[in-house]
Amino acid sequence: MGLLVQKYGGTSVGSPERIAAVAQRVSRAVANGDKIVVVVSAMSGETNRLVDLTNQFGGQPNEMHRDLVLATGEQVTVGLLCIALEKIGITAKGMLGWQVPVLTDNAHSKARIQNISGAHIEAVFEDHQVCVIAGFQGVTGQGDVATLGRGGSDTSAVAIAAAINADECQIYTDVDGVYTTDPRVEPKARKLNSITFEEMLEMASLGSKVLQIRSVEFAGKYKVPLRVLSSFTDENNEGTLISLDNEVSSMEQPLVSGIAFNRDEAKVTIRGVPDTPGAAFSILGPVSEANIDVDMIIQNIALDNTTDFTFTVNRNDFERTIEILKDTSDKLGARGVDGTCDICKVSIVGVGMRSHAGVASTMFKSLSSEGINIQLISTSEIKVSVVINEKYLELAVRALHDAFQLDKAPEKTAEKA
Amino acid sequence: MGLLVQKYGGTSVGSPERIAAVAQRVSRAVANGDKIVVVVSAMSGETNRLVDLTNQFGGQPNEMHRDLVLATGEQVTVGLLCIALEKIGITAKGMLGWQVPVLTDNAHSKARIQNISGAHIEAVFEDHQVCVIAGFQGVTGQGDVATLGRGGSDTSAVAIAAAINADECQIYTDVDGVYTTDPRVEPKARKLNSITFEEMLEMASLGSKVLQIRSVEFAGKYKVPLRVLSSFTDENNEGTLISLDNEVSSMEQPLVSGIAFNRDEAKVTIRGVPDTPGAAFSILGPVSEANIDVDMIIQNIALDNTTDFTFTVNRNDFERTIEILKDTSDKLGARGVDGTCDICKVSIVGVGMRSHAGVASTMFKSLSSEGINIQLISTSEIKVSVVINEKYLELAVRALHDAFQLDKAPEKTAEKA
Repeated sequence: MGLLVQKYGGTSVGSPERIAAVAQRVSRAVANGDKIVVVVSAMSGETNRLVDLTNQFGGQPNEMHRDLVLATGEQVTVGLLCIALEKIGITAKGMLGWQVPVLTDNAHSKARIQNISGAHIEAVFEDHQVCVIAGFQGVTGQGDVATLGRGGSDTSAVAIAAAINADECQIYTDVDGVYTTDPRVEPKARKLNSITFEEMLEMASLGSKVLQIRSVEFAGKYKVPLRVLSSFTDENNEGTLISLDNEVSSMEQPLVSGIAFNRDEAKVTIRGVPDTPGAAFSILGPVSEANIDVDMIIQNIALDNTTDFTFTVNRNDFERTIEILKDTSDKLGARGVDGTCDICKVSIVGVGMRSHAGVASTMFKSLSSEGINIQLISTSEIKVSVVINEKYLELAVRALHDAFQLDKAPEKTAEKA
Repeated sequence: MGLLVQKYGGTSVGSPERIAAVAQRVSRAVANGDKIVVVVSAMSGETNRLVDLTNQFGGQPNEMHRDLVLATGEQVTVGLLCIALEKIGITAKGMLGWQVPVLTDNAHSKARIQNISGAHIEAVFEDHQVCVIAGFQGVTGQGDVATLGRGGSDTSAVAIAAAINADECQIYTDVDGVYTTDPRVEPKARKLNSITFEEMLEMASLGSKVLQIRSVEFAGKYKVPLRVLSSFTDENNEGTLISLDNEVSSMEQPLVSGIAFNRDEAKVTIRGVPDTPGAAFSILGPVSEANIDVDMIIQNIALDNTTDFTFTVNRNDFERTIEILKDTSDKLGARGVDGTCDICKVSIVGVGMRSHAGVASTMFKSLSSEGINIQLISTSEIKVSVVINEKYLELAVRALHDAFQLDKAPEKTAEKA
């Protein structure tokens, strides 16, 4: 008997039939004697429908008001799942972000969780079997509804699991685990039984859509055991465990665990910036103030004591970024701003590469032999990312999957790498 | 310069274009120097869509959970109207039931407002021009979301107007005022410039869909001047004033002000109930406990010291009522239960009939001359209602509209009736 958080994403609750299936799955866990907290997303398609509605008035909608609209998607799912549970004899209590409460900061549309009180959730189990909570939403200190941004329901689930000290946080989704890469791009992709937090963090940050990155950060920080599994199957549904124990996992790790990619980025460059102290801050300060996340940052020194400064942002923020940079360019007396959305990022990830040289060169060689030009490179201890033209994405992923033999399960070795 | 509550119903906010039009109308009132509190319904069709979703799990859904789902309809409209207002330069703040807060009892799906605090609404005007509030919803003392039942947004608007001591509560709808009867049934129906609260209360309770009955009760009780007007026109849009001053109004009143009708009722009869003290309570007690509203009640004494007991309920409650009555019938040793949905109620309403005999007989004569059989009769000081077979509804309404010459505007007289 344990305390489990189960999170169901949009496709898992995409129709009344799917919601009834989730209720059945929850009831089996209840029959096991487990206490179940369910965190739900909006029904698939619903958030897009709501976003479209908010875009009908011209320009960017006010984000505080937009959050009021978007938060309804999860609220509907909470009510429907509670109805479905009661129908099969399970007593359930629904809770919205403000009822838990999930306290967030004021960054509407991408709010961050500041605190979750577990007391109200725990009280639910005094007279109910299941607590169903709306993901993706919280309430600010001023009492306004705020959303956590796309995929925020994963973060909600992990943060709630941490707050109530759950035994495991299970993320049910439309895939049966974490793969070496997206099987839609590389059919030979292989499911991983476990992956380390660090690797998962890189995979998520690099565009693997299985888990939202903030949820992995939360899980790592608060030591919440996290498992990704399918809501569409019952057979052999062990999913992929995001392991807390890096040591043990890494013993079994191959050099590279997976290939991640991301089509959501855009590249912007500000050219001919006078090379003075504080230039980078002058450029990135206003971008960060506008709540735009910057990913890769590259700075080259040019011959004439000016510098070209390139970075990548989410494509949704591309136009806003260009506007801000034009302003900055004028102020700094730079030569101008350009950018493109026509790029993608492909990354190899693996804790094994820490202690092995040559991984990056294998990557570059493989891409080069396919005639793929590398525009930007960024590395960390456990990943190497490159930005290439978007049209080469599938080609690059398959070439790298092959080069690192990811279709083959790694042999278990007892020796440390 | 005044403090106005404007309520917009489902068709008035039925699309982004309509919501933008509402924003324009609100902005004109703001330009007038008025402080505006807007109360909104769900976009037309949305509540039905949500109700359908909650009915996908078999049987009656749990009403507390259903309320969570239904409350989202108004929430979406609040967010969208705020976005539309900000787009045209009006600062707006959206508020949900729990944020106001609108405190209700625990009768989920038909909760009653217990208290509204005006303080949060008034504080909005310190740094915003408009406050947009979700109608139809509130929060219980336990912190659960509750809805007020169909049409509850009118009640929300009036209750909020009372709480903040507004100068007028304007109900914007898809008709331009209160008519002598439904123009879709009788094309000769005439718009009334004013109507007394008592008459409006009867019209509403008798099925006139222009205003929800509880909103009229609230307006009368708290002396909130109420006006019904169109959100689809600007020309001559004076609407119908629900007058607080019965004395003045009644001087100008004809015998009958309007014809109301209602297709939403069903008739149930419990036969052969032993005629003992407390029989009526034994029958109606369990019905009322199930939160089913009973309208007309008729009891006849039969020859054998048993009684037949007939009453009408909303058709939505018909099946539940029959179930409850079967149980009661067994317990009381009655002969059985029957009922039908195949009825309608037609009523004549007017404060003028108080002091004039013969109104009822004109009504009965008119129906009789059309060959319409009267099943039940119920009267009050200012109305006479009959239940007839549903198929005669239109015929009866037109005959009565004609008999009382409602197509002609009454002559104003200085003498008291």
